[in-house]
Amino acid sequence: MTITIGVIGGGQLARMMIPPAVELGLRLRVLAETEGASAALAADAVGDYRDAGTVLAFAREVDVITFDHEHVPQPVLAALVDAGVAVHPGPEALAVAQDKLLMRSRLSALGVPVPRWAAVTGEAELAAFLDAHGGKAVVKTPRGGYDGKGVRVVEEPAQVADWFASAQEDGNPGVLLAEEFVPFRRELAQLVARRPSGQLVAWPLVQTVQAGGVCAEVYAPAPGADPGLGERAEQIARTIAEGLGVTGVLAVELFETEDGSLLVNELAMRPHNSGHWTIEGSVTSQFEQHLRAVADLPLGATEARAPSVVMVNVLGGPAEGTIEDLYPEVLGLYPAAKVHSYGKAPRPGRKLGHVTACAERFDSALSIARGAASALLG
Amino acid sequence: MTITIGVIGGGQLARMMIPPAVELGLRLRVLAETEGASAALAADAVGDYRDAGTVLAFAREVDVITFDHEHVPQPVLAALVDAGVAVHPGPEALAVAQDKLLMRSRLSALGVPVPRWAAVTGEAELAAFLDAHGGKAVVKTPRGGYDGKGVRVVEEPAQVADWFASAQEDGNPGVLLAEEFVPFRRELAQLVARRPSGQLVAWPLVQTVQAGGVCAEVYAPAPGADPGLGERAEQIARTIAEGLGVTGVLAVELFETEDGSLLVNELAMRPHNSGHWTIEGSVTSQFEQHLRAVADLPLGATEARAPSVVMVNVLGGPAEGTIEDLYPEVLGLYPAAKVHSYGKAPRPGRKLGHVTACAERFDSALSIARGAASALLG
Repeated sequence: MTITIGVIGGGQLARMMIPPAVELGLRLRVLAETEGASAALAADAVGDYRDAGTVLAFAREVDVITFDHEHVPQPVLAALVDAGVAVHPGPEALAVAQDKLLMRSRLSALGVPVPRWAAVTGEAELAAFLDAHGGKAVVKTPRGGYDGKGVRVVEEPAQVADWFASAQEDGNPGVLLAEEFVPFRRELAQLVARRPSGQLVAWPLVQTVQAGGVCAEVYAPAPGADPGLGERAEQIARTIAEGLGVTGVLAVELFETEDGSLLVNELAMRPHNSGHWTIEGSVTSQFEQHLRAVADLPLGATEARAPSVVMVNVLGGPAEGTIEDLYPEVLGLYPAAKVHSYGKAPRPGRKLGHVTACAERFDSALSIARGAASALLG
Repeated sequence: MTITIGVIGGGQLARMMIPPAVELGLRLRVLAETEGASAALAADAVGDYRDAGTVLAFAREVDVITFDHEHVPQPVLAALVDAGVAVHPGPEALAVAQDKLLMRSRLSALGVPVPRWAAVTGEAELAAFLDAHGGKAVVKTPRGGYDGKGVRVVEEPAQVADWFASAQEDGNPGVLLAEEFVPFRRELAQLVARRPSGQLVAWPLVQTVQAGGVCAEVYAPAPGADPGLGERAEQIARTIAEGLGVTGVLAVELFETEDGSLLVNELAMRPHNSGHWTIEGSVTSQFEQHLRAVADLPLGATEARAPSVVMVNVLGGPAEGTIEDLYPEVLGLYPAAKVHSYGKAPRPGRKLGHVTACAERFDSALSIARGAASALLG
């Protein structure tokens, strides 16, 4: 019997699950937010993921539910579990990805290295935190932030006065997460996948480069990383995946500090931008692996398929037309570039696609991927 | 504007065009023979490809028409061209793939090396051909043969008496193609792709292993082949593609004779079983390349991505259930195997899927791909 995997959310992550589903012969059904979503080809249903009735009706047609994003409300997840639906990752794990305060608290309890942090309920508490941590902090809204939204580097409490105010208007206690400002050497990401039955695999540690809080480039493997660093990153990710009971792909974003230690910055419990390089760059892509994991099938090999793999996001796109309009020129200039389009209309800063290049040398991979991604901006 | 490519035929070749179409952001529409076809995910239309009205209606929704198979009748192709539809490969090229006598005649005219052949119109002519060529010949029906059907090795004219009879019953002159029996060392295949505007690229020469007239295994690159052999094969394929005006992927099946020369056996003007290894094994797969070529986009790089790539077909499948039922065991035993299912019900001898393995050594790739493909038979 063919396994049917239901994905809530029709964005590019769901879209990129389509190729491995087609290849493996797994059936994919997507509950998209709108018609014409990025994953429209597999979108059998369009509806509101915040509505339990909609999601339950969708779930009746599938064997397991997984996610394109982490925004499905806990009451909807609870309704799925109550109805006997297999949900991967499960509600308890997702709760940690949905709330950065809960995440910091659970990671601290697991003994995972994180930046020093506090829950601050007002400007006075934030001022005290700033005083205690060098006068500079990263302040985050506990919920709803992504791609740099809901994150500010702060030296004065007044810089987040609006967040305290709007949180209180919503009837919330107005709690924000304050973290020490970590003067990191670079950012890294460790991707792992875990089956419900426990098997866990890890991909090579990668370096990520952010621009304006958005992932811009990924280098696999992380250049110049010694094996010890990779082992520590993998151990951190394993501790988190096992400690929180994560199923499917888990991305752990890390700071490598000036003194060479690792601190966990963020988590994502789904395929992640830091793992797009695996489509061409690893024996098993994160999207194929996520499908295998949530279906509780044996996980595939995670070795890199080239000495150096570079992924560069296409952010924003041309002022007029689509990135596909530029293929006649760009594909000719970069015959070894693997161009991925998410089928979205260009908009300033929007993630429209990405380019991956595999090469013997880092410089070659970087110049191909950067060149093609840049040319796709028009 | 997103380019829409229409594929006539909903088999596994159309199915395997879905992943690269999703990745590149090209729109794919498939005219399938039946509901639930292998390429059902992209099947926007179901209908008879022999009916000009059906095909014309389908063609109105796309920018270019291409094919999952070579069986679309010439009058239907002519109607498309008359209606101004871009058809790749075009009717003239396809005519050569549809009729083995025409193919032999055109290849001979192009100076391409082929086995000695004749059109024989009855048992007496075949007897004369047998006498002149060592008493043994390969006899083929000019039209409709594939995967070993319509091909017989003959030592007595009576062995194809039924073919002569049935051809005459159909009101045809009863012409068959007789070819000398070539005691070849092995079979090879040369894959190339060509754009309408002329650009042509070639993949590495591969060895194919047939079982009962059906492709069973493909080894890329052809083990032990010297560069000169690859150059000759590429030159033959280029001569054919340019001489016949082929657009899209062209597969040239070759005999390597005992004395090391090459003879053309068969042609396919579409992605071909001998090129499935390119999905993981080459920078650009034959399916992505075919889409690029028929859309007249620049072609991608064709370098191999591993020292050795082996593809093994899954023929027949388990006696009960589907190959997917065997994933819990097989994927665990072969974590580096890339398993492809075509979503078809098992039937003796039917091509249900294939397995590809990439490795440093031929032996390793062979043992993984053979092991997994064999385990998927149940």
